[in-house]
Amino acid sequence: MIIILKPGISKKQEAAVLKEIRKRGYRPHVMRGVARTVIGAIGDELTHRSLETLAASFPLVVESVMPIQKRYKLVSREAHPANSTIRVRDHVLGGKKFHVMAGPCSVESEKQLLTTAEAVKAAGATILRGGAFKPRTSPYEFQGLGEKGLKLLAKARKETGLPVITELLSENHAELVAAYTDIIQIGARNSQNFQLLIAAARTGKPILLKRGLSMKIEEWLLAGEYVLAHENSNLMFCERGIRTFETYTRNTLDLSTIPVIKKESHCPIVIDPSQGAGRADLVVAMCKGAVAMGADALLVEVHPNPAEAWSDGAQQVSLEIFAKLMRELKPFIAAAGRE
Amino acid sequence: MIIILKPGISKKQEAAVLKEIRKRGYRPHVMRGVARTVIGAIGDELTHRSLETLAASFPLVVESVMPIQKRYKLVSREAHPANSTIRVRDHVLGGKKFHVMAGPCSVESEKQLLTTAEAVKAAGATILRGGAFKPRTSPYEFQGLGEKGLKLLAKARKETGLPVITELLSENHAELVAAYTDIIQIGARNSQNFQLLIAAARTGKPILLKRGLSMKIEEWLLAGEYVLAHENSNLMFCERGIRTFETYTRNTLDLSTIPVIKKESHCPIVIDPSQGAGRADLVVAMCKGAVAMGADALLVEVHPNPAEAWSDGAQQVSLEIFAKLMRELKPFIAAAGRE
Amino acid sequence: MIIILKPGISKKQEAAVLKEIRKRGYRPHVMRGVARTVIGAIGDELTHRSLETLAASFPLVVESVMPIQKRYKLVSREAHPANSTIRVRDHVLGGKKFHVMAGPCSVESEKQLLTTAEAVKAAGATILRGGAFKPRTSPYEFQGLGEKGLKLLAKARKETGLPVITELLSENHAELVAAYTDIIQIGARNSQNFQLLIAAARTGKPILLKRGLSMKIEEWLLAGEYVLAHENSNLMFCERGIRTFETYTRNTLDLSTIPVIKKESHCPIVIDPSQGAGRADLVVAMCKGAVAMGADALLVEVHPNPAEAWSDGAQQVSLEIFAKLMRELKPFIAAAGRE
Amino acid sequence: MIIILKPGISKKQEAAVLKEIRKRGYRPHVMRGVARTVIGAIGDELTHRSLETLAASFPLVVESVMPIQKRYKLVSREAHPANSTIRVRDHVLGGKKFHVMAGPCSVESEKQLLTTAEAVKAAGATILRGGAFKPRTSPYEFQGLGEKGLKLLAKARKETGLPVITELLSENHAELVAAYTDIIQIGARNSQNFQLLIAAARTGKPILLKRGLSMKIEEWLLAGEYVLAHENSNLMFCERGIRTFETYTRNTLDLSTIPVIKKESHCPIVIDPSQGAGRADLVVAMCKGAVAMGADALLVEVHPNPAEAWSDGAQQVSLEIFAKLMRELKPFIAAAGRE
Repeated sequence: MIIILKPGISKKQEAAVLKEIRKRGYRPHVMRGVARTVIGAIGDELTHRSLETLAASFPLVVESVMPIQKRYKLVSREAHPANSTIRVRDHVLGGKKFHVMAGPCSVESEKQLLTTAEAVKAAGATILRGGAFKPRTSPYEFQGLGEKGLKLLAKARKETGLPVITELLSENHAELVAAYTDIIQIGARNSQNFQLLIAAARTGKPILLKRGLSMKIEEWLLAGEYVLAHENSNLMFCERGIRTFETYTRNTLDLSTIPVIKKESHCPIVIDPSQGAGRADLVVAMCKGAVAMGADALLVEVHPNPAEAWSDGAQQVSLEIFAKLMRELKPFIAAAGRE
Repeated sequence: MIIILKPGISKKQEAAVLKEIRKRGYRPHVMRGVARTVIGAIGDELTHRSLETLAASFPLVVESVMPIQKRYKLVSREAHPANSTIRVRDHVLGGKKFHVMAGPCSVESEKQLLTTAEAVKAAGATILRGGAFKPRTSPYEFQGLGEKGLKLLAKARKETGLPVITELLSENHAELVAAYTDIIQIGARNSQNFQLLIAAARTGKPILLKRGLSMKIEEWLLAGEYVLAHENSNLMFCERGIRTFETYTRNTLDLSTIPVIKKESHCPIVIDPSQGAGRADLVVAMCKGAVAMGADALLVEVHPNPAEAWSDGAQQVSLEIFAKLMRELKPFIAAAGRE
Repeated sequence: MIIILKPGISKKQEAAVLKEIRKRGYRPHVMRGVARTVIGAIGDELTHRSLETLAASFPLVVESVMPIQKRYKLVSREAHPANSTIRVRDHVLGGKKFHVMAGPCSVESEKQLLTTAEAVKAAGATILRGGAFKPRTSPYEFQGLGEKGLKLLAKARKETGLPVITELLSENHAELVAAYTDIIQIGARNSQNFQLLIAAARTGKPILLKRGLSMKIEEWLLAGEYVLAHENSNLMFCERGIRTFETYTRNTLDLSTIPVIKKESHCPIVIDPSQGAGRADLVVAMCKGAVAMGADALLVEVHPNPAEAWSDGAQQVSLEIFAKLMRELKPFIAAAGRE
Repeated sequence: MIIILKPGISKKQEAAVLKEIRKRGYRPHVMRGVARTVIGAIGDELTHRSLETLAASFPLVVESVMPIQKRYKLVSREAHPANSTIRVRDHVLGGKKFHVMAGPCSVESEKQLLTTAEAVKAAGATILRGGAFKPRTSPYEFQGLGEKGLKLLAKARKETGLPVITELLSENHAELVAAYTDIIQIGARNSQNFQLLIAAARTGKPILLKRGLSMKIEEWLLAGEYVLAHENSNLMFCERGIRTFETYTRNTLDLSTIPVIKKESHCPIVIDPSQGAGRADLVVAMCKGAVAMGADALLVEVHPNPAEAWSDGAQQVSLEIFAKLMRELKPFIAAAGRE
């Protein structure tokens, strides 16, 4: 911790601050600068009590307190320099092979899901996505098929061999969802629902953690830390767009998270351009950018008839556009050194 | 719904859109403008299937689709023109009397809680706040005393007569928390955790719903709609600051929510300046502004020794500052026509 | 400056950084912490070359560089502990008396301006506002009456005795505008148009500097520093709402700037609720909040017939509403200890 | 324009609104919906007086007013369906060939500039960038070499044959800067400094218009409209990152602007990853993403010794990293179908 004192502080005032720092288990180190005095407090910030309250305790003396240690450990690349890979049935995520997870926003019917699953498989997708429990802004909107949707996903997996990813919404459904899915998705609205993160982690299933709408990268890494701290190391981060002032797109897809997560963490990074753009016509360009920047996988919403979709139709691409997208991605995947 | 067509659309293309609108149960109404044609789709947007996917179905024909109906009903002032009031033991929130809810961020010990409860009561607070379950950004931070904290709150209520408000974090704790508290608080991070909102609503207890960090007012009203739609009409909204680019303050307290919520909804509006400012030295000014602008209550973090607090010490005010604040608020409460 | 090194740095790597710090005129001071080493660089950050590039020069060694000195001097309260007051003809801004600047968004005609000027004076306003040069988002919108508007403002001043404030848009108009106005307004879009700030400062007229739409408080203070550094100490800051994700209001009025500017600077702080709310129906509540929180003045858009206004009609209040507002503000002005 | 009335409006109230709409030159068209009545006002929104003030004129009757026409014309793809290309000496921007503009943030000395110019040319850059007039947040920072910098740019052009781009800061320098440069850059802080845009347009030189820190895409297009409306059709848009809540990166580079600008406008789109990332280590990934998503050119800050740079050293890449970047971009340029 670095503690910056206000200008013109007396020796006595300074001594009181130093005493408090020692009391909290840190060793203070005083530096007298030109304009003000700075104290370095030496000690482990993760295990000792925080010094951030010093500004409150000594409002006339302490100007500000700055942490110098990173607050996340297990998700950090410092803790685990090599890339982590995650096994999902026969697939390995985070390795040399590039993956595409595709499927409908919501599971609506057996026919809709199987048609989509077969089409995305034929186009080259390796994992099937589909929502059974849906978080909806309004209580009057379709909330998902629930367990019936999970059963349809399991059926689609049996028929196509594609592993399945679906969202978990409630702590009470953690075991139920884990019984059907291969990857548990935690949505943006629940990205700091720590009870849900813990419940998901305990199932032992791989977790895909979406970034919250206004989540700083540090907070996202710390939310991931909840998963690893509960003994589940199969974590992927998924950027899906943040909330900004711009209204042309539904969210602002922050593709810089790809090199940033690669730098700070060993966990794979997945890009969801469907939520990010909120418009099918931007999805294709977003996917190309994500591949070029080094993402490990894409998560794309695909629907046999987007206009008939029961949720978020505006951002789902049709089977034809998806097949075309997969063809167009190939040279970029090769250019990025992936398979 | 208003559907705006692109320029230069043929009769045949237009007819296809009109057919689809009728198929979804709306009556189309065509207006030919100078630059483009606009279709009004007449029908109840809350009960019919959405037309927002039309832009996806007819990407070359439809430019955009705009809803004209408000998506919330039960929380709206249109549905309930008079102000709602909420009875909490002997108190009525949302009426002529102005309320102050005060207490520590976290319940830490019997002594800490009782000292605070007695002091805030003496200063004029009418409700005691205190966190027993704490949502923390890092898994390594203090997570609250849990049920022990709830018992201490009940004890403090018994000794001071102050009703109690505390946060609910987990669906599985809804009944437990409801057994001890008088008002259930839903925190900013869980403001779109709809399963938690439903579980809280079902306890029948009054709910204080904080605004999420990047929640639009419409989304906040719709989250409140989840509570009323699950047959609990004792809802209060609580503004606690939104996330913006500014880093000087922890969040940007959006005081305009006071007149806006009063205009759009019949539910009371509470201001939490502690989270909003993230700095005790700004709390006093924030409180004055909130009173002047017509808030129904304040939610203030108070600690006998902020520097020793186990969580968020920087934003808690001391007992002395709280007592001074309450004295200074008096003329503003009178000027606002409240008691 | 505080320089944080990465973990596991060799003595040789550290020595290279220390050498560079000395070369730039700072005295390095090494602190060895538990997790990493921190270097304090002692020297005046305002006069020495920045060390922020150290992270670029030593990308494998330096993790981050944090300034500890504030970058603004002349606008800071440290430099000038007492409140500054600004004389504008017979008035003193920033003192015990609370001021209201009112008038139309755009000067449209002699009749419109004189009617408004007389009405706002009768209601208690002390300064007349009116735009002669208007910055408009679209080139097809009304751009203001220009010099004709300035002449009408001068005429209104002569008839009512109210000093005048108007916006300066172009460096080339600085002398022209200064010849007619008593206060020069720098608008939000030009808040970092430093050439314009310098030109305005050189006229010697009092400057009202609006906060840019996405301007951090530090940047605002530094923009103000441009005025004081060019030998004009008659500076007022004016908050008018920042750009956030919220779309219900046009901007988010950040009233916390009142206590923050009072804490950081000696210059007066003015609130413009018209731009902030973008809706006349919220203006009244905003004004009350601003008064209660300690603003020195308000800047309110008033129009004899808002529906007929040539610009920004939605946010201007009518003469009747303004008179009512001024009556309603009185108890809050008294409660705030102002006149 | 679409005017939405409140529920329960009388015939008489409605008639008053209809009368006002006709008075302003529009033809009203009434649609009675289930929940409320909607009026379509038919007429050219660009030439008629706005109806947006109707909500202010009839606050009890009109709920909201929504424009349906786009506010920009000349920059729109509707007005000019083919891509525009811009000739800069021997080069054509916006065509099949991909361009890279590279050079130092600030021109510092002849040696620094010539070394950089030769190196970036050797690596494949086609245009030389360099700042002679610098907008700096603080008045105490280096403000650029001014005309001396312009002369050095002209010299570098003479020696390398690379056309030159530099920023214009002041209306008064428009002719001076135009005499030396091949492309005029308008910076983010001046993106709505309309007087500067007009002065730049009038020089006839190609204009590169950076997006403001919190500029909506519509506002950016309208700022560009100022250039075209002043008879200069050689306009390029340049995304350089917007301001969001995230603090890990200096700004959030919004790469979705590439497909969006391509869809809405015929003008070329350039990406500036240096300002966007604020960190040299992210620049390479950003460039790859920009190429893959269809940008027409890059604008990259390059410095022979970033650690010694007089401005923004943290975000400039070295000559070696730039050469490596250019090599790594090649397969992505090919995959994007560019040369």
